[in-house]
Amino acid sequence: MKMRKPLGVWIPALMVVMAVVAGALAWTLPTIGQTDNQPAQQACEITDVDREVTLFAENIGRNRVGYGLQRSQASFPGPTMEMTEGECVAVTLKNRSNKKASLHAHGVDYTTASDGTRLTRSCVGPGKDRTYVWQAHTESLREDGSVEPGSAGYWHYHDHCRFGEHGTRGIYAGMFGALIVRAPDDPLPDVEPCVLVMIGTTFAFKRAPNTPLCEAELGQRAEFVVITHGDEFHTFHLHGHRWADTRSGSLESSGDPSRIIDNKTTGPADSFGFQVIAGERVGPGAWMYHCHVQNHSDLGMSGIFLVTDSNGQITPEAQRTLDRFKGGHHN
Amino acid sequence: MKMRKPLGVWIPALMVVMAVVAGALAWTLPTIGQTDNQPAQQACEITDVDREVTLFAENIGRNRVGYGLQRSQASFPGPTMEMTEGECVAVTLKNRSNKKASLHAHGVDYTTASDGTRLTRSCVGPGKDRTYVWQAHTESLREDGSVEPGSAGYWHYHDHCRFGEHGTRGIYAGMFGALIVRAPDDPLPDVEPCVLVMIGTTFAFKRAPNTPLCEAELGQRAEFVVITHGDEFHTFHLHGHRWADTRSGSLESSGDPSRIIDNKTTGPADSFGFQVIAGERVGPGAWMYHCHVQNHSDLGMSGIFLVTDSNGQITPEAQRTLDRFKGGHHN
Amino acid sequence: MKMRKPLGVWIPALMVVMAVVAGALAWTLPTIGQTDNQPAQQACEITDVDREVTLFAENIGRNRVGYGLQRSQASFPGPTMEMTEGECVAVTLKNRSNKKASLHAHGVDYTTASDGTRLTRSCVGPGKDRTYVWQAHTESLREDGSVEPGSAGYWHYHDHCRFGEHGTRGIYAGMFGALIVRAPDDPLPDVEPCVLVMIGTTFAFKRAPNTPLCEAELGQRAEFVVITHGDEFHTFHLHGHRWADTRSGSLESSGDPSRIIDNKTTGPADSFGFQVIAGERVGPGAWMYHCHVQNHSDLGMSGIFLVTDSNGQITPEAQRTLDRFKGGHHN
Repeated sequence: MKMRKPLGVWIPALMVVMAVVAGALAWTLPTIGQTDNQPAQQACEITDVDREVTLFAENIGRNRVGYGLQRSQASFPGPTMEMTEGECVAVTLKNRSNKKASLHAHGVDYTTASDGTRLTRSCVGPGKDRTYVWQAHTESLREDGSVEPGSAGYWHYHDHCRFGEHGTRGIYAGMFGALIVRAPDDPLPDVEPCVLVMIGTTFAFKRAPNTPLCEAELGQRAEFVVITHGDEFHTFHLHGHRWADTRSGSLESSGDPSRIIDNKTTGPADSFGFQVIAGERVGPGAWMYHCHVQNHSDLGMSGIFLVTDSNGQITPEAQRTLDRFKGGHHN
Repeated sequence: MKMRKPLGVWIPALMVVMAVVAGALAWTLPTIGQTDNQPAQQACEITDVDREVTLFAENIGRNRVGYGLQRSQASFPGPTMEMTEGECVAVTLKNRSNKKASLHAHGVDYTTASDGTRLTRSCVGPGKDRTYVWQAHTESLREDGSVEPGSAGYWHYHDHCRFGEHGTRGIYAGMFGALIVRAPDDPLPDVEPCVLVMIGTTFAFKRAPNTPLCEAELGQRAEFVVITHGDEFHTFHLHGHRWADTRSGSLESSGDPSRIIDNKTTGPADSFGFQVIAGERVGPGAWMYHCHVQNHSDLGMSGIFLVTDSNGQITPEAQRTLDRFKGGHHN
Repeated sequence: MKMRKPLGVWIPALMVVMAVVAGALAWTLPTIGQTDNQPAQQACEITDVDREVTLFAENIGRNRVGYGLQRSQASFPGPTMEMTEGECVAVTLKNRSNKKASLHAHGVDYTTASDGTRLTRSCVGPGKDRTYVWQAHTESLREDGSVEPGSAGYWHYHDHCRFGEHGTRGIYAGMFGALIVRAPDDPLPDVEPCVLVMIGTTFAFKRAPNTPLCEAELGQRAEFVVITHGDEFHTFHLHGHRWADTRSGSLESSGDPSRIIDNKTTGPADSFGFQVIAGERVGPGAWMYHCHVQNHSDLGMSGIFLVTDSNGQITPEAQRTLDRFKGGHHN
């Protein structure tokens, strides 16, 4: 689970705890046997984990709760988790907030013990710890000839326990983060993924000019992860760049019929991601991203993708745009 | 048109009327001739139908109207219709409700006489009957070299006549159902399709714990059909399972770039479906499905996909979860 | 940039100004150099343009503002722009309206000087002119082996400057239009594209029966471009016809796993398009298109796709349907 140093000041620096689990822990996952039907393959067990990560759930000020890799480092969104297909990871949630909390992951494999819901009794009380086991599997051919997709995708994790069966108050407090699962041959970005969480009429409770500044040098492979939470629907638009509406955001081959988009409708708990070559065919600049629902963007739901020149310098024009953005020309 | 016995108690058992039409009926479909342009192929006529089905439209209590295969068996959603590409089916609607009604189908071929709208004068008055003809065609290559897609898909049918040009009150009364068209080599599910209709902040006017219980044994191929109706947008989420955002919900081949999802934004009259191997890599359990719009799920827009063990037994853990769900731990 | 004569009376006839730019204009685009990273290719410069188009922004009555190819011909939507991959086009906006205006394009390549936003200082004051340069590139293989998608798609352009950073009042005034970029081997439609802009609970501020009449002869290849603007989400439904949810709306090959749809959820600034063979397998008729959000359709958000017979004649049944539609049987 790689967690790179984030790009900007709005996400605190995070330290990665990556210790291979040497021994068995207190509880184990149920073993899933063969069936007379399609064989259901076994989820990884706590004794099989390749890596172990600790996440702390903590209050941030009076209104927010976030996840962090260290005490006093909780943030919203929480740390970006990365897994590679084939990995089994144990994430121990140390709940240091004042209410029940959990980790519910999208996209990866987990038994009901790692579901992270009240219904499955997999929440964590205040002051308590619980280990969730997530598996990312590779694509395979089932015995019946059908293709089982691999786990690769731009996924996310969030609370599902705080103040209700669906974690609504946990989500609205800030308990969410990105979970990127990569296929072995997926290209890696040159810079930290820029994680943008659309919630209410904000990006993670921030409005322009306080929204995340995504940044890359001209020609670098940049990566965006866009997650929606809450009750609103949005359309995510990025200026000057486009992507494919596929698993990876890229075309897999020439002739791939997938739609190319620069604007995507998204609703609560949807997530998608894509890589772009920063400034490809369009040059450096301070390029806007924003929700294209007009009253959302007018309320400040916009930010900047700063493409510096190939030496990493901000061009004078981009600097002027940034200055205008910070000065209030944004909503 | 195969109609299997539904999975649970919330959809009444249905009997299939499958009689090959031997003679010509009173009205015929217009014949479509060749043109100087791309040849428009001929829709099947009433004299060509492979099968005939009768549907009754009936009032259910004071507020609901549904479709049923027999008198007094109307339900919402109505019976799940299944066709195979290449088939031509005549569906006779016997309107035993108190207002105009119709069948408007998505996805299949029909002439304007089978459009099922007031505008095309293809409604059915109270006490009257009308035969709608639906055709499902196979994929073909057009003369200009382009591919004409086959009719296969997870479609649906609904009223388009009750109290207005768009059937709004018919839809809000319960006049809707699933229409599955299969390509000849599509894999069949091992259990009845679980049809989930998102309308308002309910699944077919039911809230937890009264929403459909979808059920399959570990390793069985289960099938979901999700239809949205009305005015709201939703995101459908299923715990512990994922699917491909394709026609079939599956990847057609290795390297297929389609997005893998476990959460999908959907709006009125959208429909999609998918098959999963129940419990694949995650094991048995009572897995939640729910709308991920937080205020929708908090209002009870959630249900259970019960994956029993490979012997069809409910595991003790799943039973406890079910009990909690029925006891009110659901919203 | 081909601009065909539009289909009906609700869009004024437009004349195309296509003059190859012979000399250099006053400003040039920045040159983008090679980098140590993925080489960012150079956007076309004003000196390289293949064609030049002039657009006028003008007030229409008291409440609307539109784009037009000639003075006094502004319309909403504005003229449909067409480009072919590989082209570089200079569009000079002559702002003859009473407020700031711009052109912001989706899908194509442009430097920040052609971004068309206040933030990038690329608006046009009243009475002023500004030239925007748009490039449409072909698919290519990057040096790292990944596929750079071509620009082909059903895109759009709109104001991004009027009364605010996001052009909200420009959009709500009518400052939008379609931008179709074709790959060299894309099939051309036999008739003018039918451009439908979903905004509020209208198609471009029109309600039934005043919505666009899309029209084609039986067997002709018809083309729809659907653009959403504003604040609402919609579902676009077409009766009797279906399309593939791909870049082109068609399947590229047999076995293409893409979803076939006849109803699509869409949000602000989304755009999609597709071609259908008019009346294929279903015959001539007056086929409804409408938003399937029930309260939107009930408010009159519907129109007609008129498929005439193969001689271009309106069938008697279609004429009766048209008459009913015009007479008020539409909402």
